[in-house]
Amino acid sequence: MVRGFLPALFWLARSRAARWGIGFIFTYMSFVIPVERLRETATLLAFYHPRPGYPLHILIVPKRALGSLAELRPQDSDFTADLFQTVQSLVAEFNLEEAGYRLISNGGRYQDVPHLHFHLISDRP
Amino acid sequence: MVRGFLPALFWLARSRAARWGIGFIFTYMSFVIPVERLRETATLLAFYHPRPGYPLHILIVPKRALGSLAELRPQDSDFTADLFQTVQSLVAEFNLEEAGYRLISNGGRYQDVPHLHFHLISDRP
Repeated sequence: MVRGFLPALFWLARSRAARWGIGFIFTYMSFVIPVERLRETATLLAFYHPRPGYPLHILIVPKRALGSLAELRPQDSDFTADLFQTVQSLVAEFNLEEAGYRLISNGGRYQDVPHLHFHLISDRP
Repeated sequence: MVRGFLPALFWLARSRAARWGIGFIFTYMSFVIPVERLRETATLLAFYHPRPGYPLHILIVPKRALGSLAELRPQDSDFTADLFQTVQSLVAEFNLEEAGYRLISNGGRYQDVPHLHFHLISDRP
């Protein structure tokens, strides 16, 4: 089910019209997202990318409806604090200081899914 | 001078021993850094990368001594708030929603300069 549901959600999310749908799901129904949670806080979920582009490819996604970096507001500081703490915790767990890692967020034309997300990647599994 | 001083600073910074030097300069002497500031706030500087790897390549650097993402602390929320506001402001100025953009921070083995920095890049100038 993991392999079917989440790619379907991502596929759906590529349509701009579906933007409010995915925002709604992450905001109000994140409990139905059938992924193995690497981290979950009050403000975000972190999980393996369903279609990884790197040997280690983790997505970090806010639970609230934020379309992109451009929509982050001062009152989202609880999410950004959780974001960096989650990165630090994953870096420690996966020994990424040693392996090397990159935190990426795409915006505008480079953003494929219209819900804010960060990629934490490494070329070593 | 821009072309000489900043690459020299970056070259120096590659040495781990120089880490406290670059931290000191960004923290206490950022006024001496001879770059065209795209943005400057109480907590950060944003300027063109002296050796760009993309048609648009901006560096966003905290003024305080932070070695990497791993060293960000809860009390750095003023910097992270400035960071995202600066990104939004640059995205607007350079019309990056249209062009596409990517915010990147490298860590561990992928980080070349031992002072926290974010790259804001686009493949269109």
